[in-house]
Amino acid sequence: MSVNSNSEPSRYDQKLELILRTSARIFAEKSFHSTTMRDISRATGVSLAGLYHYCKSKEELLFLIQDHCFGRVLERLEQRLSASSDPIEKLRIFIDNHLSFFAANMAEMKVLSHEADSLGGDLHAHVSNKKRQYTRRARKILSELQHTAPAATAARPARRNGRRRVTDSRRMDLTVATYALFGMMNWIYNWYDPGGKLSVTQLVDNITQLFLAGFLAREEAAFALAGPGMAEKISVWRTA
Amino acid sequence: MSVNSNSEPSRYDQKLELILRTSARIFAEKSFHSTTMRDISRATGVSLAGLYHYCKSKEELLFLIQDHCFGRVLERLEQRLSASSDPIEKLRIFIDNHLSFFAANMAEMKVLSHEADSLGGDLHAHVSNKKRQYTRRARKILSELQHTAPAATAARPARRNGRRRVTDSRRMDLTVATYALFGMMNWIYNWYDPGGKLSVTQLVDNITQLFLAGFLAREEAAFALAGPGMAEKISVWRTA
Repeated sequence: MSVNSNSEPSRYDQKLELILRTSARIFAEKSFHSTTMRDISRATGVSLAGLYHYCKSKEELLFLIQDHCFGRVLERLEQRLSASSDPIEKLRIFIDNHLSFFAANMAEMKVLSHEADSLGGDLHAHVSNKKRQYTRRARKILSELQHTAPAATAARPARRNGRRRVTDSRRMDLTVATYALFGMMNWIYNWYDPGGKLSVTQLVDNITQLFLAGFLAREEAAFALAGPGMAEKISVWRTA
Repeated sequence: MSVNSNSEPSRYDQKLELILRTSARIFAEKSFHSTTMRDISRATGVSLAGLYHYCKSKEELLFLIQDHCFGRVLERLEQRLSASSDPIEKLRIFIDNHLSFFAANMAEMKVLSHEADSLGGDLHAHVSNKKRQYTRRARKILSELQHTAPAATAARPARRNGRRRVTDSRRMDLTVATYALFGMMNWIYNWYDPGGKLSVTQLVDNITQLFLAGFLAREEAAFALAGPGMAEKISVWRTA
């Protein structure tokens, strides 16, 4: 995790980055509660007294990991989104930004997920606020997609005489869609190997493809794709 | 979580179920490592000596929670799948079975996710084996879907003169698709409120719709749905 967004991080920042990166790895391995400052001192080679020069407590370390992650991801996202006005491209940028950052910071990703409630008070409120801001950004892109997709479809006369492919994508619940997207992306810390044969680009392509086609298509497309006979099976979708 | 699949659980099973359910809630709240047998004794009203009648250790409690969850989900799944031969229906059953079970067992879901590595040795191996079995089941359904969907499309002559909707869904990476599905489903413990306005049926419908349409459609459908001009933007999908 890069702590400083400038190209020339100070020695202080470099050392802090080493401490945060190592702490994240240990928190991910043995949980925040089971980790001691002594563990972090041993793993970083920074004395206990030295560690307290960078943070007041173990809790502050956890806060800095979470705060810097969300901060960096948000900052990179806004930079990249500023060049785009197309909602599909925005979604692609969002997914690419999230996955490429966290594929390089898998321990941090696990810590963000598992230790979200290990912070209390103001520290928790501060991180929650950034997380809400980030979630709202994703939801806004999806909302834009829902509102532009039907118009785009209507603009294709060749399709209008056939069965409509998109009738009303607004029926997809935005809350479910937003968290389904985060679920697909954030689950990677459980299975993805950044050094394995599936590149981050391939991961991004597959996730974008899966989510975007599903979000825009709706059940009508799924039935159409499934071939004849599926129309009668529509009850399958409604059984509790 | 129901421990016994028979309709008449014994008093022993009822008590064990209470202990497991309460332990899961406490593990989910404060983590496995921070929980003591004394916490569980206090919360269940079962004496410490009484608890050790049901389990040898806190680790065995965690094992029983994980083992019973995967056992129940797998058992219910196989029962329900035995009545179906259609891969779309199978997928719908898989998602419904998973989400309806875990929406009623959210604490257990969080514990399965966060404490997967808190078990060691044989206990860990036993649970991992069931988890692998379950993951393979999902992957097999997706593989069946990939192989039957193009055939189903080809069987619809009315579509054959138009642009093909499904060209080759095999290009969707099965590992990504399988874990994306688990990610979408398992992430619900972070946001879904089973007592809120979104019913489990609606949750299942939305997730099934989103995943299935996305999985079957592929990028061609996404571009078609997005309207004119998207073909030129195909590079958006390939940028790292």
